[in-house]
Amino acid sequence: MAEHAHTPRLSRRSMLVAPAAVAGGAMLTGAASAPGSAAAVRQITLYAEPLPGGLFGYGLAPGEATVPGPLLEIYEGETLEIELVNTTDQRLSIHPHGVDYDVNSDGSPLNASFNAPGETRTYVWRTRTQVEIGGNRFMPGSAGYWHYHDHALGNDHGTVGIQKGLYGGLIVRRRGDLIPDRQYTVVFTEMLINNKLAPDTPMFEARQGERVEFVCIGHGNLPHTFHLHAHRWADTRTGMLTGANDPSPVIDNKNLDPGSSFGFQVLAGEGVGPGAWMYHCHVQMHADQGMVGLFLVRNPDGSMPAGAQAAIDRFHQHHVAGPQADHSNHHG
Amino acid sequence: MAEHAHTPRLSRRSMLVAPAAVAGGAMLTGAASAPGSAAAVRQITLYAEPLPGGLFGYGLAPGEATVPGPLLEIYEGETLEIELVNTTDQRLSIHPHGVDYDVNSDGSPLNASFNAPGETRTYVWRTRTQVEIGGNRFMPGSAGYWHYHDHALGNDHGTVGIQKGLYGGLIVRRRGDLIPDRQYTVVFTEMLINNKLAPDTPMFEARQGERVEFVCIGHGNLPHTFHLHAHRWADTRTGMLTGANDPSPVIDNKNLDPGSSFGFQVLAGEGVGPGAWMYHCHVQMHADQGMVGLFLVRNPDGSMPAGAQAAIDRFHQHHVAGPQADHSNHHG
Amino acid sequence: MAEHAHTPRLSRRSMLVAPAAVAGGAMLTGAASAPGSAAAVRQITLYAEPLPGGLFGYGLAPGEATVPGPLLEIYEGETLEIELVNTTDQRLSIHPHGVDYDVNSDGSPLNASFNAPGETRTYVWRTRTQVEIGGNRFMPGSAGYWHYHDHALGNDHGTVGIQKGLYGGLIVRRRGDLIPDRQYTVVFTEMLINNKLAPDTPMFEARQGERVEFVCIGHGNLPHTFHLHAHRWADTRTGMLTGANDPSPVIDNKNLDPGSSFGFQVLAGEGVGPGAWMYHCHVQMHADQGMVGLFLVRNPDGSMPAGAQAAIDRFHQHHVAGPQADHSNHHG
Repeated sequence: MAEHAHTPRLSRRSMLVAPAAVAGGAMLTGAASAPGSAAAVRQITLYAEPLPGGLFGYGLAPGEATVPGPLLEIYEGETLEIELVNTTDQRLSIHPHGVDYDVNSDGSPLNASFNAPGETRTYVWRTRTQVEIGGNRFMPGSAGYWHYHDHALGNDHGTVGIQKGLYGGLIVRRRGDLIPDRQYTVVFTEMLINNKLAPDTPMFEARQGERVEFVCIGHGNLPHTFHLHAHRWADTRTGMLTGANDPSPVIDNKNLDPGSSFGFQVLAGEGVGPGAWMYHCHVQMHADQGMVGLFLVRNPDGSMPAGAQAAIDRFHQHHVAGPQADHSNHHG
Repeated sequence: MAEHAHTPRLSRRSMLVAPAAVAGGAMLTGAASAPGSAAAVRQITLYAEPLPGGLFGYGLAPGEATVPGPLLEIYEGETLEIELVNTTDQRLSIHPHGVDYDVNSDGSPLNASFNAPGETRTYVWRTRTQVEIGGNRFMPGSAGYWHYHDHALGNDHGTVGIQKGLYGGLIVRRRGDLIPDRQYTVVFTEMLINNKLAPDTPMFEARQGERVEFVCIGHGNLPHTFHLHAHRWADTRTGMLTGANDPSPVIDNKNLDPGSSFGFQVLAGEGVGPGAWMYHCHVQMHADQGMVGLFLVRNPDGSMPAGAQAAIDRFHQHHVAGPQADHSNHHG
Repeated sequence: MAEHAHTPRLSRRSMLVAPAAVAGGAMLTGAASAPGSAAAVRQITLYAEPLPGGLFGYGLAPGEATVPGPLLEIYEGETLEIELVNTTDQRLSIHPHGVDYDVNSDGSPLNASFNAPGETRTYVWRTRTQVEIGGNRFMPGSAGYWHYHDHALGNDHGTVGIQKGLYGGLIVRRRGDLIPDRQYTVVFTEMLINNKLAPDTPMFEARQGERVEFVCIGHGNLPHTFHLHAHRWADTRTGMLTGANDPSPVIDNKNLDPGSSFGFQVLAGEGVGPGAWMYHCHVQMHADQGMVGLFLVRNPDGSMPAGAQAAIDRFHQHHVAGPQADHSNHHG
């Protein structure tokens, strides 16, 4: 069975991901009521907490809230029950994309689905597999690179909750999907990446040849495009192609606009070698003002590749002043 | 024959759609010169009329103009002849996306293709099926979720005509495509949905389990993203997948930028139950200022589900002040 | 072999493209070290030069720089070595999308990969074919409609270089892909097309029935949508479909946002006839201010179709004042 074969890699990944989780990534560790069953119910507790600087975050344990929140992951067919503990003095909620939920788990004030300040409330997310309905037609399943976010803090759309950091990635995986070695969540919101400006944006790391999964999420008010240097992916559900004649475009730059999400897997440094590779918003003004970070591909043994530290130093030096673009070379 | 099998459902749909056509949806009722034939020519008359508030609309009969205009629908291979009666004192036209037309039916002042004030003019839209050209390659046919709009009122691009309401949906269906029970057109333009702000945006209705088709169109100057709560679709021509290994992404949020259109079918409330579900622009500022509406999924017998009326009441209460976002809970 | 069969058409295309290359299009003419081999290495020299009006351009020979730069084209599996001669007094570089390059060919100041003023530097771009990895999964190859641009002039993201014209199209073709008769590069950046406003935007030309390839690139800070009148394409790698049941959407309007690119082939005037057809940004304000050009489809014998000259004259007349929209008919 594919899922059995993956178990060791899942464990390996969990260990690998933990220390590298610059962006707050974390594996879903909820106990499943019937592991391996399509009807498994996983249960977790999330804590919505205030963070320094007026931010808020979700975390899997008290005092562990991050921005973005933990990367949640389930298999198509499973149900996720989230007990959300609101430790703040604000009304807030959790609203998912892509999965099934009834009005009580909508996370919207419209449906009176939110946590009052200090309140604990359970949200239930179900998923489904695709269903053939005849005539070469399938109603889609839930598998995809999705996300979740507050929908109640500040107003009925969670605008303030999103501004303040209440969002994270959600993967619904299909049985048999490839399991990556490392996973990173990238959230573009306003002029920030994971609520940071360069040089404080996350530096994602991998070793040459590792399978790295990016989950990209757009939020806020501005249009963005996500670009990763020296790597590319197919514009499909998984970022891979399904056959020699698969018509899907292959891209390395994609719109990441409010409420949208996508994901893909790359083999770090494949065909290009290790090094410090940029990822950034390709809207020039956004990149100039700090919507840029580094994907550090280390040597296979984990050591630093030649030139990478110098690149990292330049990155910090260039962006030390924060949002001001450096035009000093213009008339140079 | 697939099209014969669909005839009863088409009739059923026409009856169902008529009263629920909050957004001005209407079926194409033009007589076909050779019904059932791939070369059928359908003929309709459209009336471009002034509407209260300085708006303009297209309608299938005098005095019936709506914003958006009627949802037009033909089969791939058919031709649609539109006699456009301009009852206004403005130069205007009708310009389609996706179909074939010669320069005289371009609808653009560039090609002197428009109706002078008071003038009647015929536009001819042809469609084609895909053509295999060898090597696993097909030149695309016309099937798709398209749209039409003015291209002459106010200036050479119809900018004023579009601002004032001269647009609508156009479906070119492939033989054998699934016929929905209900159809709704959603146009995002500037900060409006179908030229309305919440709470006056259309409330689309269906009964639990009905097949509902959304035709989404972007216009104007601003980027938008369309999000529907609790439902999702494949990013394909039909919104469905074509096989168990179809690589297409499944989404519930998609860019709806000027001139673009897409469509999809969902089973209302499938896996999530009945209720008042939001659809909105996911650009936070746009949602906050009123680019939000409701998709009311009723019980299978048509009755109101528990909690739905309260949700509708909250929707009206929240948005009563129009574009002002409610931040009262922020420091709550 | 497919590639042998294409050779005559490639030659024909090169001749055809040359005089019609309004937008600076040019075929890759670099000598391949092992023609026909998957491991072929092609070598070219590019000249980055100052142009009148404060612009800069890339060219395949001294004094031949254009905006956009030459359309480069290689086959998947080939390597392209570019000797970039910097004839300007600015720091600049060339950074590609879609292909493989090591940190020395990144084109970014981050990796100290740029030409100092007056310096000559070689950049190496490699490509790969897709690789099956089991389970109906393929890691994508390099084939696609890509682009290249400066990444060093003015600041670390090439913001000024891009503003000033340092960009161009890059096609990586898969063996067996259809070769067009004509090719055009369309770059949307700020409110300009190929750095021009109407009526100075390029008029792309073809004869009725010719296979025309458009390579569309977005740059700068603003979101755009590319629309072509009377023609459409599939939203796939090639713009064509790969089977009767291919689920890909067929479109005639697509987001063209900063850093993104796509391409497609149409048969000029197919099903619609010859004439002067508009292409434009469908953001209304952008079209009104001059982001519009003409695709002139001539008669099969090359003669001007009826009405086309009048349309061209209207185009020049309407846009003579440049960015001012003509609202004179509004209250007409």
